[in-house]
Amino acid sequence: MKTISSRDNPFYKDLVKLASSSQARRKAGRTLLDGVHLCQSWLDLRGAPAHCVVSEEALHNPEVAEIVARCEGLRAHVTSVPDALFGALSQVEHGVNLLFLVETPGAAQPSSLTVSAVLLDGVQDPGNVGSILRSAGAAGITQVFCSPGTAFCWSPKVLRAAMGAHFVLEIFENADLAALIDASSIPVLAMSGYAEQKLYEVDLRGPVAWLLGHEGQGVADELMSRATHQVVIPHAGQVESLNVAAAAAVCFFEQLRQRG
Amino acid sequence: MKTISSRDNPFYKDLVKLASSSQARRKAGRTLLDGVHLCQSWLDLRGAPAHCVVSEEALHNPEVAEIVARCEGLRAHVTSVPDALFGALSQVEHGVNLLFLVETPGAAQPSSLTVSAVLLDGVQDPGNVGSILRSAGAAGITQVFCSPGTAFCWSPKVLRAAMGAHFVLEIFENADLAALIDASSIPVLAMSGYAEQKLYEVDLRGPVAWLLGHEGQGVADELMSRATHQVVIPHAGQVESLNVAAAAAVCFFEQLRQRG
Repeated sequence: MKTISSRDNPFYKDLVKLASSSQARRKAGRTLLDGVHLCQSWLDLRGAPAHCVVSEEALHNPEVAEIVARCEGLRAHVTSVPDALFGALSQVEHGVNLLFLVETPGAAQPSSLTVSAVLLDGVQDPGNVGSILRSAGAAGITQVFCSPGTAFCWSPKVLRAAMGAHFVLEIFENADLAALIDASSIPVLAMSGYAEQKLYEVDLRGPVAWLLGHEGQGVADELMSRATHQVVIPHAGQVESLNVAAAAAVCFFEQLRQRG
Repeated sequence: MKTISSRDNPFYKDLVKLASSSQARRKAGRTLLDGVHLCQSWLDLRGAPAHCVVSEEALHNPEVAEIVARCEGLRAHVTSVPDALFGALSQVEHGVNLLFLVETPGAAQPSSLTVSAVLLDGVQDPGNVGSILRSAGAAGITQVFCSPGTAFCWSPKVLRAAMGAHFVLEIFENADLAALIDASSIPVLAMSGYAEQKLYEVDLRGPVAWLLGHEGQGVADELMSRATHQVVIPHAGQVESLNVAAAAAVCFFEQLRQRG
């Protein structure tokens, strides 16, 4: 295990940048996973991190010590940092002071949709994006495509809200949703509060792509018109619309229910 | 229309307290609604506010001007405040500088459950509580009971996330959930990732009460054992659990689907 003791250490300075800037994460193709749950999920699903970073005090936490031991068993780099230096690395208040530095998972984007997928068109709130990834992962959906205006998926807030779902999904950012929809070999269902076709009237037993839009404006018109179906979740109350992450969960699990 | 020009104005000081403190909102039995959507919803569903407070510049915004005119038509108090003083009244960055001061709606808590309801046991995140209220309102559920450990429903974040659902619901805070469950004349369904009975196997055509728990620990054991059913949303992926607001939406809309 290495130890960093100075704020001027170049590796430490890189970590500070990654901790505070989505742009730095995008540019480096690397991201930070914060806390026991995300790090454990990474180990379970993806194996060794590029680097494990831990505060000196956190080494006394049994859960953290176990994760560090697993990293060492996998011959991953482990570096300890004084507690005073850890604050700049974590957005979690009263967190456990454990981070993984990992290569952001990426794969070549498929040119057409062939398996059940989620298309996010400008979903802005990181908590919503994280909750949608989590629901997709729990419903067995494997591909997520995000328009350029959607929240950055590998930011701390999205990672925290998704609780490790990132590691079982293929996530494609800056995707050209119009081209994907045009080339799709499966039905694309655009969710809209103004649609007439009810969710429960659509046959969801085969693969489908769910198109979900911005919290205020919904799916953009130019995508809406390209979709195979425009679909509504029927309501019964005076409240006019659902939160986009709540609507996503209703859709994904209705598909799972129909598949039996 | 009255005008406030000094930070020492007693009414202004009261507003600052309500804007920054849930305890002040509870104690006063009053709350602030921030922004065009919440204020419009209040007017549509509940009528006149106790007071409409608007910044001088916001009076030039046509949506705000229309709301102010509706308030004056209903003989509600309207007070304008210099823009410089409005910052301390609103948590919304780049907001529209419009607030309603309203009496927090309240009714005598029923002693037993007779219509479909939501029971929240220590749900902590204001965004989750707001999303659950919004989904309940959209699904036609009318009663929500919150344990003492649940996020305060009339805080700015919960109000913002629920998008006006508060005004169509009866919300009972600091509720004794154990006593309510024991006295319930309808089935109480506790949601749990560890339950064996599947959501889709439960007959939801009559009224039911949905019991939802803390984001990390779920429903407390002493409530879980009192519930009529312990119910799971079947999953298909490697992700082990759903966000509580996503799970709530799946449940409420499965009930609506079964009711046809």
